[in-house]
Amino acid sequence: MLAKVNVASKLSLFNEHYSPKIIGEVNDLYVKVAKLQGEFTWHHHENEDELFYVVKGALRMKVRENGKENEFLIMPGEFIVIPCGMEHLPSADEETHIMLLEPKTTLNTGNVVNERTVSDLERI
Amino acid sequence: MLAKVNVASKLSLFNEHYSPKIIGEVNDLYVKVAKLQGEFTWHHHENEDELFYVVKGALRMKVRENGKENEFLIMPGEFIVIPCGMEHLPSADEETHIMLLEPKTTLNTGNVVNERTVSDLERI
Repeated sequence: MLAKVNVASKLSLFNEHYSPKIIGEVNDLYVKVAKLQGEFTWHHHENEDELFYVVKGALRMKVRENGKENEFLIMPGEFIVIPCGMEHLPSADEETHIMLLEPKTTLNTGNVVNERTVSDLERI
Repeated sequence: MLAKVNVASKLSLFNEHYSPKIIGEVNDLYVKVAKLQGEFTWHHHENEDELFYVVKGALRMKVRENGKENEFLIMPGEFIVIPCGMEHLPSADEETHIMLLEPKTTLNTGNVVNERTVSDLERI
């Protein structure tokens, strides 16, 4: 059944941090939303690029590129694409709402499996 | 070179209607932006789903589903995914700014080739 999706409405359906939910799919990719607060876990994805689009708040993204650490602050209406293989650490000082685009094979913690790994994502 | 992308800034770089520009890529998909005004062309994409996210304005999307015509009005912060094979007709009463997500193989006019076909997309 074809329907339009309101991103903010989907984000109003849950409160957990770092627990992405599926809200759509485009061929081999899922569209997800998540709420972030505090620091996540350094990780990378072997084969998957990952797009982070900020809806509300501010996403602080640390990356390790050619042995150097770098930081980007992504604001609402902005996105960053982390290419596969790149170590990254998402964090947010205040609660931040994002939309994610990534291949269906993507595990949220990438090469790391820990207590923050969510392998069976809910569709909302 | 890793960089963040401001979607509205990218949209300020051009004025043409129905001429999508590439602003990013996530594995096999391109992220594009476009400005729409007036009616496009009925078409479908044989193998590609297509996500339309509205940044500004209002996107009127007509679709033909099981022999019936249906219309959706997509507002800022909302998206619709047109699955492959579905006939659709984007239009906009006033100038509307959108972000698109679709496989790199997608041609803007799908199965139709006419004066609105843009086969060599600019990257901005």
